[in-house]
Order: sequence, then C-alpha cells, then structure tokens
Amino acid sequence: MPATKGLSIETLGLCLWDSPINLPDTGIFTSDDDVMAVKPNLKTLLDQIREGQEPEAFEVAGPREKIYFEPEKVKAAIVTCGGLCPGLNSVIRAVVMQLWHRYGCRYIEGIRGGYLGLSHDKVNNFNGLTPDDVEQIHTQGGTILGTSRGSPPTEEMADSLIAKGINMLFAIGGDGTMRGAAALTREFTKRGAKIAVIGIPKTIDNDIPWVRRTFGFETAVSIAVEAVKAAHVEAECVFNGIGLVKLMGRESGYIAANATLASGDVNFCLVPEVDFDLEGPRGLFASLEKRLTAREHAVIVIAEGAGQKFFGDAIGRETDASGNPKLGDVGAYLRDQIREYFKSRQIAMTLKYIDPSYIIRTHCGNAGDQLFCARLAQNAVHAAMAGKTGMLIGYWHGRMTHVPFHAISGRQKINPAGELWFNVLESTGQPAQFKK
Amino acid sequence: MPATKGLSIETLGLCLWDSPINLPDTGIFTSDDDVMAVKPNLKTLLDQIREGQEPEAFEVAGPREKIYFEPEKVKAAIVTCGGLCPGLNSVIRAVVMQLWHRYGCRYIEGIRGGYLGLSHDKVNNFNGLTPDDVEQIHTQGGTILGTSRGSPPTEEMADSLIAKGINMLFAIGGDGTMRGAAALTREFTKRGAKIAVIGIPKTIDNDIPWVRRTFGFETAVSIAVEAVKAAHVEAECVFNGIGLVKLMGRESGYIAANATLASGDVNFCLVPEVDFDLEGPRGLFASLEKRLTAREHAVIVIAEGAGQKFFGDAIGRETDASGNPKLGDVGAYLRDQIREYFKSRQIAMTLKYIDPSYIIRTHCGNAGDQLFCARLAQNAVHAAMAGKTGMLIGYWHGRMTHVPFHAISGRQKINPAGELWFNVLESTGQPAQFKK
Amino acid sequence: MPATKGLSIETLGLCLWDSPINLPDTGIFTSDDDVMAVKPNLKTLLDQIREGQEPEAFEVAGPREKIYFEPEKVKAAIVTCGGLCPGLNSVIRAVVMQLWHRYGCRYIEGIRGGYLGLSHDKVNNFNGLTPDDVEQIHTQGGTILGTSRGSPPTEEMADSLIAKGINMLFAIGGDGTMRGAAALTREFTKRGAKIAVIGIPKTIDNDIPWVRRTFGFETAVSIAVEAVKAAHVEAECVFNGIGLVKLMGRESGYIAANATLASGDVNFCLVPEVDFDLEGPRGLFASLEKRLTAREHAVIVIAEGAGQKFFGDAIGRETDASGNPKLGDVGAYLRDQIREYFKSRQIAMTLKYIDPSYIIRTHCGNAGDQLFCARLAQNAVHAAMAGKTGMLIGYWHGRMTHVPFHAISGRQKINPAGELWFNVLESTGQPAQFKK
Amino acid sequence: MPATKGLSIETLGLCLWDSPINLPDTGIFTSDDDVMAVKPNLKTLLDQIREGQEPEAFEVAGPREKIYFEPEKVKAAIVTCGGLCPGLNSVIRAVVMQLWHRYGCRYIEGIRGGYLGLSHDKVNNFNGLTPDDVEQIHTQGGTILGTSRGSPPTEEMADSLIAKGINMLFAIGGDGTMRGAAALTREFTKRGAKIAVIGIPKTIDNDIPWVRRTFGFETAVSIAVEAVKAAHVEAECVFNGIGLVKLMGRESGYIAANATLASGDVNFCLVPEVDFDLEGPRGLFASLEKRLTAREHAVIVIAEGAGQKFFGDAIGRETDASGNPKLGDVGAYLRDQIREYFKSRQIAMTLKYIDPSYIIRTHCGNAGDQLFCARLAQNAVHAAMAGKTGMLIGYWHGRMTHVPFHAISGRQKINPAGELWFNVLESTGQPAQFKK
Repeated sequence: MPATKGLSIETLGLCLWDSPINLPDTGIFTSDDDVMAVKPNLKTLLDQIREGQEPEAFEVAGPREKIYFEPEKVKAAIVTCGGLCPGLNSVIRAVVMQLWHRYGCRYIEGIRGGYLGLSHDKVNNFNGLTPDDVEQIHTQGGTILGTSRGSPPTEEMADSLIAKGINMLFAIGGDGTMRGAAALTREFTKRGAKIAVIGIPKTIDNDIPWVRRTFGFETAVSIAVEAVKAAHVEAECVFNGIGLVKLMGRESGYIAANATLASGDVNFCLVPEVDFDLEGPRGLFASLEKRLTAREHAVIVIAEGAGQKFFGDAIGRETDASGNPKLGDVGAYLRDQIREYFKSRQIAMTLKYIDPSYIIRTHCGNAGDQLFCARLAQNAVHAAMAGKTGMLIGYWHGRMTHVPFHAISGRQKINPAGELWFNVLESTGQPAQFKK
Repeated sequence: MPATKGLSIETLGLCLWDSPINLPDTGIFTSDDDVMAVKPNLKTLLDQIREGQEPEAFEVAGPREKIYFEPEKVKAAIVTCGGLCPGLNSVIRAVVMQLWHRYGCRYIEGIRGGYLGLSHDKVNNFNGLTPDDVEQIHTQGGTILGTSRGSPPTEEMADSLIAKGINMLFAIGGDGTMRGAAALTREFTKRGAKIAVIGIPKTIDNDIPWVRRTFGFETAVSIAVEAVKAAHVEAECVFNGIGLVKLMGRESGYIAANATLASGDVNFCLVPEVDFDLEGPRGLFASLEKRLTAREHAVIVIAEGAGQKFFGDAIGRETDASGNPKLGDVGAYLRDQIREYFKSRQIAMTLKYIDPSYIIRTHCGNAGDQLFCARLAQNAVHAAMAGKTGMLIGYWHGRMTHVPFHAISGRQKINPAGELWFNVLESTGQPAQFKK
Repeated sequence: MPATKGLSIETLGLCLWDSPINLPDTGIFTSDDDVMAVKPNLKTLLDQIREGQEPEAFEVAGPREKIYFEPEKVKAAIVTCGGLCPGLNSVIRAVVMQLWHRYGCRYIEGIRGGYLGLSHDKVNNFNGLTPDDVEQIHTQGGTILGTSRGSPPTEEMADSLIAKGINMLFAIGGDGTMRGAAALTREFTKRGAKIAVIGIPKTIDNDIPWVRRTFGFETAVSIAVEAVKAAHVEAECVFNGIGLVKLMGRESGYIAANATLASGDVNFCLVPEVDFDLEGPRGLFASLEKRLTAREHAVIVIAEGAGQKFFGDAIGRETDASGNPKLGDVGAYLRDQIREYFKSRQIAMTLKYIDPSYIIRTHCGNAGDQLFCARLAQNAVHAAMAGKTGMLIGYWHGRMTHVPFHAISGRQKINPAGELWFNVLESTGQPAQFKK
Repeated sequence: MPATKGLSIETLGLCLWDSPINLPDTGIFTSDDDVMAVKPNLKTLLDQIREGQEPEAFEVAGPREKIYFEPEKVKAAIVTCGGLCPGLNSVIRAVVMQLWHRYGCRYIEGIRGGYLGLSHDKVNNFNGLTPDDVEQIHTQGGTILGTSRGSPPTEEMADSLIAKGINMLFAIGGDGTMRGAAALTREFTKRGAKIAVIGIPKTIDNDIPWVRRTFGFETAVSIAVEAVKAAHVEAECVFNGIGLVKLMGRESGYIAANATLASGDVNFCLVPEVDFDLEGPRGLFASLEKRLTAREHAVIVIAEGAGQKFFGDAIGRETDASGNPKLGDVGAYLRDQIREYFKSRQIAMTLKYIDPSYIIRTHCGNAGDQLFCARLAQNAVHAAMAGKTGMLIGYWHGRMTHVPFHAISGRQKINPAGELWFNVLESTGQPAQFKK
C-alpha cells in the first residue's frame, strides 16, 4: 500500500507556537496529513493504487494547531496587482480581519499601487491597515490599495520588504503576480530571510489551473448577463438587428460561455479555445446570414482572446507591463467585418456593439463572492501563520487547498469536448465549428 | 382685461358623444378652457396683462366630458420610431390599457418596425394588441413593436393607414417622428380624413422644447451614474488613472450634467452647449494635467454631441435615416487625443474609456418613469378621443399639456448661465470655460 | 391692477454683503420679487385679478445677490429628526457642500441624534462636518447624524444653539420637526437672536401641503414595487393565493397609490383617504371572494393609516414621541380578518403578508432623488445666507419656493375624485367604494 | 483490493437505444462506473482500502451512451411542490429545453399546483410545455406551474400519471416531495409500471444531506444581506437601536450564517443548531445589553427554527400540509421579549423587526443560480432517459451525482465545531454560547 502525500509545500521552519485560536469546543484544526486527491474519481484512484502509484494530492488548507510565527512579531503586507476584479476589497478586508481578530497581529501594511509600490522610492508609502479601515470596503469595487502592472526587479522588491521588516506577504493577482511571488520566494530563500509568501489567485477569466473557481468570476458573469440582455433588446427591436458583446477572456472563454448559458439569449458564442473562420459556406458569416433570414435578429458574444489569428503573428510579440501579449481588438474587428460583409451582400442590418468590460470588473463582489473571498483570505492567513511559503490558495472539488507556485503553469481552458461547451452549443444552436 | 386662450389645437369636429368615463363621484373632466401660462412667473404675467397682452398658454390635458369618437368605432394604431429609450413599452402598455379599459375600444393595432411599417408592402404586418398582450411588457426594455429610422413618403403612410381604416394614430418618437406626424396630419386634412394624430415625445436627451421632462430620462441618468462609478473606480485604482465616459446628448447635455450631479464623482463634464478647447494654457489638457498632478486620478464625462468642431464641417452634412446629422465619435477622439497629449509630455497615465449608451437605452423604465409614461399615454388617449389632432402631449410646470406640433422647433438646451450648469461647475470644480 | 407679493417670509435683517457667488457670465441671482402663483391656472388668475384680488404667491427660491451673513462668520448646524427616509444623507451632503464650496463657510456642525441632541447634556456631542466627511455618504441609507423622535423644551434647544454660537440651523424632518423649528424661530425672535431657521421637509408619505414632491418618495415607490412583485408571485403560485402588502402612509396613501400604478399587479388598493367596509355584499371581503373565484389569486396593498376605524377611538389618543397618534396595525388586522372570513366560509386560501417598510426607508436615494435632494439643500442654504428664517423649502409646479412655517397645516391628501385615484381604480379594477 | 460501486440506483431495464446526442467530437458520455467517493479525503480512502472496506460512492451524473427510452415515446411530466424558492422556473425551463432540444422529446406536461394537481379531479389540468412557453421564465420568480403543500394518496397520484400515459416524472421539491416521489417509485414498481421518477431537491435552507448546495440558496443569501443592511441602518441611526431580522432556516441556519458572513454587519446570529438562553448573566439579553452600552446599536439575525424550545412541546406536534412541524414565530417572540427586557431594566431602546422571507423566496435566481439550476435539470433528464428511477440529483464536492431516495434522511446541519460556525463567531464577536 503506497504512502500518499500532498504536493510538497515549502515551509520556513518548525511550528513551535500554539495557535491562539482556541474557542471552546471547536476542534477545527487541519493537519498537514489531510490531503485530497488531485483526481478524486474513485475508479482512477483505485487503479492508481492497484498499480502501486502514489496518487497526486493537495494539502487541505485550514488552521494549524501549531504555528510558526509568534503573532505579536508578525509584520504582514498585502499587495494587489494587475487588472481590477470584483472582490479585491473583500479579500483585503478578510486578510486584515483574520490577522487582527483571530491571530492578534497588530502590524499590517497595505502596499500602495501593486508591485511598483515595492520600488525603492515608494517604500515609505505603505499604509497601515486596521479593522476600522477595512470594515466597509467590501461594498466598493476596485482595490483600496491601488494596483499596477509590471514590477521592479525582484532584488529591489526583496530589499524593500526586508527594509520594512515584513515577514509575511499576501500577493493578490494573476499569473504574472504569482510568478513575481515565486521569484520573491526564491530570493528570500537565497538570502535566508524568513518571510512567508502566499498568493491569492485573481483572474476574472477563471483560467488558473487547479483553481476551479476564482473570486469575482461569478459576479462578472452576472454583470455580463446584463450586457447580453441589452444586446438582445437592441437586436430584437430593429429589422436584422445584431447585438455584439465583447467579454473578458484572454485565453479562456469561461465568462463568455457562462454568460451565454445564464442568459439564454445568445446565438453565437466565440471563445479562444475554439477556432473559427468568418468566410466560406460553413463560416460564421454564412451562419449569421442564415440566422438573420430566419429570425431577423442575432446576438453574438465574443471573448476578447478569440479570433486572434486575424491579427497575424506580429501581435503576439508585443506585451504589456504584466508580460501578457497584447491582443488585437477582436470586438471592433468583428463589428467592422460583419458590417462590411452585409454591405457587400447588400443586406440591410443594424449592428450594436457593447464592450462592458470596465463596468464588469469595477463592480463589487456579490454575496456569493463575498463569502468565497473571505474563505480564500482566511486560509491564506492560516497558511502564512503556519510558516508555509511559495504557495497559493487553490480551490479543488469544493475544498480550499495549498498549491505550490511551481505547480501552476499554462491555463485552465474550456474543453471543447466537455459538458460546458456542449451546453453552450445546445443553448445557442450554433454548429460545433465555423470552418471554411 | 384681455381674454386668454391656449395655443390653438386642431380638432376633427364636434364632440357629440358622452365620455364613457363615469365612475360615481369622480368629477374629473378637464375643459378646453383650463389653460396654463407658458411663462407662469406671476410678475411676468401681471406685466403682460397690464400691457394688454394675451399671455401665451397651453391647454391642460385630461379627459373631456364630451368626446368625438364613438368608442366602438375607434381603430387605433400605435407606432414607435427612432432609437430605443427606457419606457417605450410602458407607453405602449398604457395606451392599450386606457383605450381598452377606460373607453371600451376593442380595435388596437401595433405597427411593426416604426414608420417603415407603414410602407405598402408592410401594411399587413400590423398586429392586434389586447390588454393580455401588454400586461407585463413594462418590465422589459426596448419596444415590442420594433422600431426603425426613416419613413416611406407621407402619402404612402397615409394610404396605408386609411386602407386599414385607422382613425387614431399614436406616434411615439423624437423630433423626426413628430415632423412625420405633423406631415401626416396635414395630409389627412388635405384628404378630409378624420384621423387623429397624437404624438408622445420620446427623447432620451430630454431636449424637446415645452416638455420639461421626457420619459426614460430619469432612468437613463440612473444607469449613467453606474457607468460613472465604474470610471471612477478604474481611475482611482491606478496611478494617474483617467476614467472617460461618453453619454448620450446630441445637442443637449442633460444626461451628462445630471449624471455628474447625481454621482458626485465627475471632475470634467463636457456638453454640446459649452464650447471647449483642448490645447492652450487654459484648455482641457492643461486642466487635466493639473488635476492629475494634484490628485493622481480624474473622471471625465462627455456628451456625444460635444466638441463636434473637432470633426470639421464635413461631418455636419451627412445625415442618418432619421435626418439627424451624423456625429463624429468624440469619445474615441478624446480618448486618443488625451493619450497622445500625455505621451508627448512623457507623463505616464492610464485611460479607461466607457461607452454605456446601449446598456442605458435598453433598460426598462424605473418606477418613476413607469408612472410618468402612464400619465403621458393616458392623456394622449384622452386627447385623441376628444378628436384633437396635430399635437403632442407636453409636460410643463408639473402639468400635462397639449402642444401643437408647429410649436415645437429647435431644442431645449442647458443654459450655461443657469442653475443646472452652475451646479455642474460647482460639483466638478471645473472652470467655466476651457479656452486657449 | 393689484400688486402681488409672495407669502411673506421673515428675515433677520438687511442683506449688506455681496454674494461670493460670482462665476463669470452667470446671471443666476433670484430676486425676492420673483414669485409664483399658488394657483397657477391662468383662468383662475385672471378671474382673481379681474375681481381685484391679490393672487397668493410663493417667493421663488434661489441665490440672492446680496446676503445677510458674512460667510466666515457663519456657524451652521444641521439636524435630522423623525423616521428614516431615502435621501437624508444626500441632503446633509449637499448642505455641507453648498456652504463650504459656494459660500466659503468653514464652520458646520452636525447635531447628533435629532432634536434630542440639543438637550443640555448632549451639547458637546456635535461633530464638525467637512466635504471630506460627507463626500460618499449619499450612497448609504439612513442619516450619518442619527435621528430621534421628540425634543427637549424649546428654551433648552435655543440655549444649546446659542451657547455653541450657531447662527444658522437646517432642520430636516417632518411635521413635528417643522413645528419645533417654528417654535425655535419664535424663541430666537423673542430673545433677539439673529439665527436663521430653515426647514427641509421630509416625509416619505409625500403628504406635506404646498410641497408637491418630497425627497425619498420616488425611491420609496420603487422599492415598494419590488414588494408588490413579491406578493404577486406568492399569490399567483398557489391556489387562491392572496398577497397582502402594508406600505407607509399614515394619513395619505400616495406610496400605496403610486406603487399600485407602477406595478400594475395590484387588485385592491386601500388608503386612508377612502373609507372602506369589510363586511356586506359590497364590502371588501365579498369583492375579494369574487376575485378569487374568478382568478384564483389576488394582490392587496394597504397604507398603514387606512382602516383606522377598526381600532376604535381609543387608539387615536395615544401618541408617539413625535406627537403622531399611534396607529393600529391594520396590516396584521386585515391579514387575520381575511383568514377568518375565508375559514368561516370554508374556502381554502393562502395569504402571505409582507411589511417592507424598514427595507424601503433605509434605502439610499436613487439618482432622481439624489438630484432632488441636492436642489432642496442648495436652496435652503441660499435662503439661510440671505437671512431668511421661519420657513421651509417647498416645491410647487416645478419650482423651488420659500414657504413660511405657519402656512403649513394639515396634510396633502389624495383627492378621491381626482386623476390619481381614478387611475388607481382603473388599474386595479376595484369599485369606487367598499360599502356595506 | 476491494471493488467499489456507487450507491445502487434502481433502473427500469436495459438501455437499448443509442443516445441521440452525437455532436461531432464530443466524447462526453458518462459511464455508470464513474463513481466518486462519498468521503473523498485521500487518507480516509486509503485507510478504508487498507482495511478491505469498499468505500461508499455516488454514481456520477451525466449523459449515458445507451438510453432506456425511445425519445419519441417519452411522455414527461414536471411538478413543483412546497414553498417558493429562487430558481424554480429555471429548473422547469432547463428540463423542457433538455428534453426537447437534446433528446427530441415532444410530449412534456406541466402538472398544475404541485402534487395536488395529481388528484383525480385535476388530472385534465396538465398543460403542455414547449420551448416557446419556457424561454423567458427564468427571469421571473415563483413557478409557472404553481405549487401546493400536501398530496393525494400515492395510489391516486399513480393512477393519474398512468392514466395520462406519463413515463417520466420530474419532481422538484423538498423533503416531503422526495418522500412522495419515493412512495410513487415503490407504487410503480409494485404495479410493474415503467415510469422513471427523478427528484430535483429544492430547499432554500440548503439542508439536504449529500447535496452541498441547493438551487436558490445563493440568491437567497444575497437578498437576505440586503435585509440585514436595512436592519443595520435602522439600528445605527437611533440611540440604542436594535435591528432584528428573521431569516429562513427551519432546522439548519445556513442562510442566517452565510448572510451574517457576507454582510459583516451582524452582532448576534442565532440558529437552530446552537441552543441559547435569553436570561442569566451569560444569556443573550445580558450580552445584548453590554453591546448597547458599548456601541449603542446592535444587529441580530435569527433563523426561524432557532429557539423553538421557548414554545414548549405542544408546538412540535402540529404539522402543516407538507408534514413539517409548525414552528413558533421566534422572530416576533424575540422582538417582544427584548422589548420587555429593556423596559424592565428601564433602558431606552428602539427595535426594528424585519421579516424578508417572502421577498427572498419570490426572487428569480441570480446568474450563478441560473447556471446551477440548468446543470441540475440537465442531469435529471440524462438520468431519466437512461431509465434510472427512485433517485435525486445530488451535488457533492463539485460533481453532480445520483443519490437514491432512501439515502436521504435527516438534515444537513451546521457543525457548531466547524469552520463555518467558527467564522460566524469571529465575524459577530458573539460568545460560543449564550448560557445561563
């Protein structure tokens, strides 16, 4: 019978302190031995075991009975990076509340303006955070700490944190932020600095591997549905009306797909995971024309990362400050191409184009996201207090988990042969492919 | 003492029928003698009277005791034209309910797709409307009848209506629609056709003279405020963030001004009524740069009709199907110009541009607009039943009025020396002018 | 030709100071000679004039060119009293902004907890207000100053204000609050204290005479509509379902009537202005039974002040701290009586009772109310700066006006023979009366 | 090595038909061998295996490659029972869409008014459902089919369904509904009737075992948060203000607990799972008094099933038509008791009591619930088509599962020693117990 162990999580040292959490009768501590299989299908598991393999597993997140840090010596810092996303303030709030109320930490700094706030000349801009400062921020969109793209060199960031005496960093952000946090972890290890680095993954696109649901995603879908409704009304009210909505989704079309399903009004859903052609008898245009002939209106939803092939290879090379390749504006492109197509076919139509991205991402989290943000943040604090580092909080089959930064690579994407996409095809009635 | 009379309203003939409205104890009939002064300031009135002038006045709208049409012979038609606006379905609903329940009319047609639905080949596309058809439509945006811009020739529209036996037309739409309705009235008069033509003015911009408030405006402002909030969050969360929102307002900046006041987050409000320069020491750019230096973020709201001088004279000449001159896209222009300005000054900044127009105009009316739409529609029906024609329902100093089509010309605009604009200057802190 | 003059407004003395409001080109000052007729119907006016009467008129509100107070010597205080109402914070915010930014006043106190905050032992609890304190409060319900019912003796309140050097009081509240403000005005006059007392009328019921619309009313109606929708769903989904909603409206049923019209789902609307019987062949119960037989569901809306006769005379005598008579709980009464009636008739039915009052009144103002609150507050400040006192800001036929406290008596009520009630009868289909 | 098998699901017979689902490239079929462990903790699993136990497991839901029913012979019926819950219409919609579009079934009946619609005299009241009928219903609250409590005898229901030729029943409802469905399954088996009975569990309280999340719960929490906000505003704005909110939760306090966490404004959260005393030095009243002394306001949330001990044993015996014991009205009781307590202590305070239950449960599902309802319904249809019966669709660790009716007993409850309750204690600051 093989032993089994979670994906190994780096730690700063032995946990010698008793957790201050000791409410009467609450036996809620989690052990590092509590692990959950990465692939929990029971048949798969039994097969693995039968073949003598050790099933891959995640450590389950939660409060530990013994902790690494003495609470009154904790100097925590929080940073938010990259684009806005519903729930950022909820995460900040819950990290502060958890550190303060549950562990008794009294020194919590907010780093201003993302990783750039860790450059030498900004290091005195930190601002102290107390429960009073954050009590009501969950009802506002954005992040009270500000954000930015890009970062100073890792060494400089490490210098700044060490200079301020920080021993616990909570980094909230996407891909690039997690890479930055991983680099910081290595730098601290190299220097022998006992600083815990914990990531809280933020991606409105919901595209981080091993993290089934990211905060803000559900809120984003609900606002996206409103935009789809607007497009539907515009389309229905005129002859040959087309409503075109561009939604977030650089490499994964989850928002587009889920908004399509939740609204029920979409006829064409285009995502990065499924290639499509515009021209040809089985292309999008022919299908769209057929729809107009039959129903005199159509609603199209496109994820921003879909159809990037129309912008050639050049586009792929430029990147923004976060290191993401700059995308061609496929919404505007499709708008113009559709208009041209129908003009050339001498078919009257009216297209209304809606880009609700900023309205979506500046929203505050809805009640469901509030709860989810709080759980993420609470478990991030538990992990940091236990001296864990070089990891982020994942969400897998309904449990919060510890995931080492190095396990994250690539993107979680929609499986075009899976249930979600199948449901989209069903809901829209669109063919499985738009191919010349 | 001079006699006084309302702006004269055309009528189809004598009112010989008793109104079927006769609930016990309700002495609610309005007489044609009930008029209200166009300029109700008491001092002005007394001065006019002293000088022997007859003060201009509007007939007050309301049910008449005697009516022109025998209810069972009424064949009413409703048409919605031009762009979408919150409350269209509420107006349709209330016209149908009023005709059906209060006057007992049983033949009500919805014309499909605006005035274009009155072309010869569409004349059989009318669809009959009953209370059941419209009972819940006020909770949906758009118009169940569809809409369009442009129209067939007046003669053709008159032919269609006469061919279908219509004797009462409710035309819901903007400027162009009212001009079309006026032309139809003249055509009917010429032909001796006893058909009442009543306009219900629709302009999301709230820019119709003698109509203080148009339906949908209040809803539009409330959704616009949400977009401004999004821009504010985007601006505040990054270094030198600029949130730029383009709002409706072709010739009048009421939505921009009111959204500015209701939100409290706007730093620059640009409207068609107030010219502005971009360059120069007192231009917008210099002021914006100063704001960024001082506060590191800024929110700009611009009405779509502002700054049209930047697009030269050529733009003014092209018109859309409704006869409105095509506007240059001042939102995109300003976005690009601002970016270029700061680039040339080597000042880092991030601009987020939001155009919420379609999201705004597809919304259903809020509770306030529901009530207002119902009052407009009810009074339109009262007027038609009394055989009035060639007029629209106005709203003046809190009363519904009868306004002849010919009295409408030009636009209601913000007075840059008045209270509203003064409040905007106060709220934004912007200078009275941006001038080289 | 008779002269005409507004209802006389008391003033503290001569206005010797130039208004600091002097933006270039803004000729926006209002003169005390600008008056508007209380009854602006033109025919009525001319008749009055013909008969040599002086038409009653209100002073029009607005900024005066000369003011009484030297801005830097202003010591303003704001108090909010009575029940909560959407928009309270918007009014507070606008008073502070107006005083600070437009007039340059720098000493503004918020009195804590209503008039009770003016008792001797609370006098040091005032808190200074600056634009920063109030910038975002309009997005929250309630009042940041707190509120209460009742008050210390007038003398004690006067002592407190004088002790603190206050020379300008803004009292936001209902009936009782305005009576208190009137008493304070008289007390100040008696003592020769030059303190301006300006009321901003608050009544979610919209029942103040000479004030066509009160702030918060529109927001209240919109939330009430949501509750009616809930009642409708409950009623429709079960056999013989009855949804019963109690709404605010002690003496006037405006919220009930307007929610009825805006929702379109109400079958019975009961208000204080229209007496009704429960029993008898033409009573409410018989009508309700008939409705259930025909449609198997019904929605009833009742204003809290309706049907008080069922509680006998005794009830009328007790009063709450604000001096309002305590009402019998007619919602619960009707709920129980209806259940008993159908039980006695052995007719199965399910009644769901909803009382959304606290959810309604704690809402923040919607965009329309934000704008309205701002206008009220701005004009209140203009009036105070001009040394006017003993008055409130009214709203009459679309204009803000000055109304002396003594002109306010009784309640504005729904006219059962007027258009609003007629529309309610029409929308519900209920008979004009429920009478034994 | 032990074999493993899901909790056995009853089937009607062999699946001989090919599934009509065959989109190109979509290998999405699920096999009955796909099972997931009921307790997926890896260590637990390995221990079980080591000890030779067969881990309990659920069949994973999803489309089967071979199906039992020939689609054109399917006669499906849908019934909704018990109290209203957000998302009911979304479930109905998705069942119809799935049957019609994906499997090609053309005979779908809606049973009117819950199980009572299956009594002999109602059997002709079914109404046929097509995609057109249900296309937009997900935007409305309630259920278009109506609902009821109680049911005719099982034999009578079976007679009705057999008489109408139904061979597939989707029963949407709570506990009692699932018991009824189980009884029907046994009756059909007894009679040899090949009728699939599939449950879709509905409980706004989220208290069904083996179903981590039930539809509507998330929406319910989000509306509950609004009510808590109202209570908070009421409490904060007056001296010693207490806001008391009663929320749903007969035996489990999930809504109360989650609303407490999502709002952040609650000071006392009372649920059925945690006993509490009112009196005594460590009772609720003493704690509440202390809170008022310190902060002058308090917000209390109580689940309707909490504190039932205050109503004695008698209450427990009466039941409603669904067989649920009638609860004492603990909200009103607590309201009165608190008032009395402070009166007896001569402490002034103001309590505002809010019961938002009907407003919550009549809401339509939010975007998240729309998606969840669709997945439940789709999998219910897959199960029925495969001839499975006597089961409901569960949700366990992120997967949809098949759960036999007999596995459901008792309630899922909050563990007072678990993380959720711990978080509630943390958020409120309340002691772990209120005990004399």
